[in-house]
Amino acid sequence: MDIQAFLTDFRHLSTIGATANNGVDRQAATAEDQQSRHWFAARAEGLGYPVKVDGIGNMFALLEWTPGAPFVLIGSHLDSQPLAGRFDGAYGVLAALHAAKTLQEEIAADLSAGGAAPQFNLAVVNWFNEEGSRFAPSIMGSSVFAGLMDQEQMLAVKDHQGTTVREALDSIGFLGGDERPEVAGYAEIHIEQGRILERGGITLGAVDRSWYTQKLDIEVLGEQSHTGATAMADRHDALTAAAKIILMVEAVTRDYEEEALVSSIGQMFVEPNSPIVVARRVRLVADLRSDSKEIVQGARSTLLEKIANLATEHNIRINVADFDIRPHRHYPEDGLVLAEKVAAELGISVRRIRTMAGHDSTALNTMAPTVMMFIPSVDGVSHCEREFTEDKDMVAGLQALTEVARHMIQGVLEA
Amino acid sequence: MDIQAFLTDFRHLSTIGATANNGVDRQAATAEDQQSRHWFAARAEGLGYPVKVDGIGNMFALLEWTPGAPFVLIGSHLDSQPLAGRFDGAYGVLAALHAAKTLQEEIAADLSAGGAAPQFNLAVVNWFNEEGSRFAPSIMGSSVFAGLMDQEQMLAVKDHQGTTVREALDSIGFLGGDERPEVAGYAEIHIEQGRILERGGITLGAVDRSWYTQKLDIEVLGEQSHTGATAMADRHDALTAAAKIILMVEAVTRDYEEEALVSSIGQMFVEPNSPIVVARRVRLVADLRSDSKEIVQGARSTLLEKIANLATEHNIRINVADFDIRPHRHYPEDGLVLAEKVAAELGISVRRIRTMAGHDSTALNTMAPTVMMFIPSVDGVSHCEREFTEDKDMVAGLQALTEVARHMIQGVLEA
Repeated sequence: MDIQAFLTDFRHLSTIGATANNGVDRQAATAEDQQSRHWFAARAEGLGYPVKVDGIGNMFALLEWTPGAPFVLIGSHLDSQPLAGRFDGAYGVLAALHAAKTLQEEIAADLSAGGAAPQFNLAVVNWFNEEGSRFAPSIMGSSVFAGLMDQEQMLAVKDHQGTTVREALDSIGFLGGDERPEVAGYAEIHIEQGRILERGGITLGAVDRSWYTQKLDIEVLGEQSHTGATAMADRHDALTAAAKIILMVEAVTRDYEEEALVSSIGQMFVEPNSPIVVARRVRLVADLRSDSKEIVQGARSTLLEKIANLATEHNIRINVADFDIRPHRHYPEDGLVLAEKVAAELGISVRRIRTMAGHDSTALNTMAPTVMMFIPSVDGVSHCEREFTEDKDMVAGLQALTEVARHMIQGVLEA
Repeated sequence: MDIQAFLTDFRHLSTIGATANNGVDRQAATAEDQQSRHWFAARAEGLGYPVKVDGIGNMFALLEWTPGAPFVLIGSHLDSQPLAGRFDGAYGVLAALHAAKTLQEEIAADLSAGGAAPQFNLAVVNWFNEEGSRFAPSIMGSSVFAGLMDQEQMLAVKDHQGTTVREALDSIGFLGGDERPEVAGYAEIHIEQGRILERGGITLGAVDRSWYTQKLDIEVLGEQSHTGATAMADRHDALTAAAKIILMVEAVTRDYEEEALVSSIGQMFVEPNSPIVVARRVRLVADLRSDSKEIVQGARSTLLEKIANLATEHNIRINVADFDIRPHRHYPEDGLVLAEKVAAELGISVRRIRTMAGHDSTALNTMAPTVMMFIPSVDGVSHCEREFTEDKDMVAGLQALTEVARHMIQGVLEA
């Protein structure tokens, strides 16, 4: 395995959409996303793997040893949040490409020595729009692939400039029409984006389940008026009510044990957003996550009740809608055992871990045997330029992914 | 005076940029602003008044009886806030145009009967960008005219799409180069945008001074991170701190007597503004206004202290900068007396009143004898579609403006 080539590729990929402070900005279907896609396609085709693009912009680099056999997919996503870190997603795609290269070389040697082809073929995947910052919801490409979201509906989703997914994909030349590979399994490696591995001094996380999560779409409807000429008592200010909601969404976490619930508002739109106009309308998106479904549902009820009281107090209307509810998903036990066995063979420390964040593997896990692995994030920070993982951890993760994929194409998770 | 023609023109002007609920949306230098400018120019030229456009997009329709004499300017602005009312500004421009028409007809008759020309010429003005919603600061065109703002600096101001004032004016064909008329005085009529006249059952307000106002530019710098993977204790969320600032800016008004201070946040920008990212940076604009300079300065000090404490508590950086400080401006006593005399002659009730909002007359008042008058606003609401003033009040205001302009072109405010 050529470790140096992997690290060199990673440094190169990190220059695409690079930001001032070592981060990247490659939101879905932007020029920067297009550039990283072209780079990925060229790299895969250079290795001899044909690249297919499906109707939602997912890219598949195919390694086909047994014509007609299903594919084990390995990969992640090249798109990023705005002003994001360079590891999230990109590391997983690149590790998958290098794992594939290692396996391809070994199998080619085996085959020419008269060995048998593996049971399954292999494909390296770059999923479209995992991040969801430009086009909501997130985990879009893999969810369409897994049949959890409707392709036509997703192609019609608009960004805040009114551009649809279809138009954006078309404009970067990635609105494909290729047939999707039949899937035999999925493996992904990703940075943890939390502190559990780092605190424990452990190199590999075998993800056993995802947190229960949901979002709330909150619309606060006040009345527009002149900031300079409207008496305080005569106002129906949507923004002051929205400010109270932001604080409620934070405060509700304190009803539970520390770290049992995370909740946040990351997105809001103020209308008309003029310095001298009292706001007419504010839209907010709240994000609730816990390992316990009951906690998420309890927090949601508390918030709904407090928001209803707030609307009465302020004499304004507030509409709240649930969306993007993602139940717990358990990853299969034999995949966890496989990851632990591989780590033991490689001499890498490993532990089971839960994921608070959603991943493409969350979608794939609903349709095929799926293995999800984490490597440490320094200080647990992610979705920011300061995101960092050490080379030695990236290399250990690459080795683990290579070994997991080696077993999976031999059909070990079917047993 | 043709009252019906005035009302018909007003109904017509209100169709330009009309919104669903009887409002208008004609932000500065947009296609809708362009359309109302073309309408105004065609109407003035149809009456035989040549229209000049200066280097910041102010429009002047000239009535020149005495070549070389300075001009009394009368007018207001045709631009609006987003989803605004149809009276704010537009009423004043149209009243000025109809006052000019009446005076022109009378003076033409006088002149052909051998009478003398008035001491001053007259110009109807449409000031550029009074509202400041697209391009900050507000009161831009008249402030450049009065030498309070630098033209080159204002032409370089960008909207949130990065378009400059220069580009926007050029694109609508209103980046003029005509010489500015020499100014002998200024009169403006405007809706009150408050409840004082309505509560008192009074038709005309003679504005004696403007409130002391200032804005604060507040930048909250947190740290970007993943909403799903960052423990609550590890966050430096710029948005929760910003929410507390929004509430502080509202709460500070309660340190003073009711209606002594108005303060608000109407504009904010969240970065990166993604549903699953803890905000890195929030920018807010606070607007403080009072009839007392001491109250504004006291509220500012309270806010600065509370914001500094908040930054410490949240372990984030918050930068606060003063801008757009507008001291009290007194309108000249003889102008107030003139408005009162005119009202008495017309049989219209009148009272002295202060303006909480800024107006083009605030800028003109620094350079020439200025008369500012108000007519009632139903429920005091403004900067919204529900803004309303009755026809009878619009007509009374038109008559008052006509009479004030008649006296001013005779040089009465120079005495």
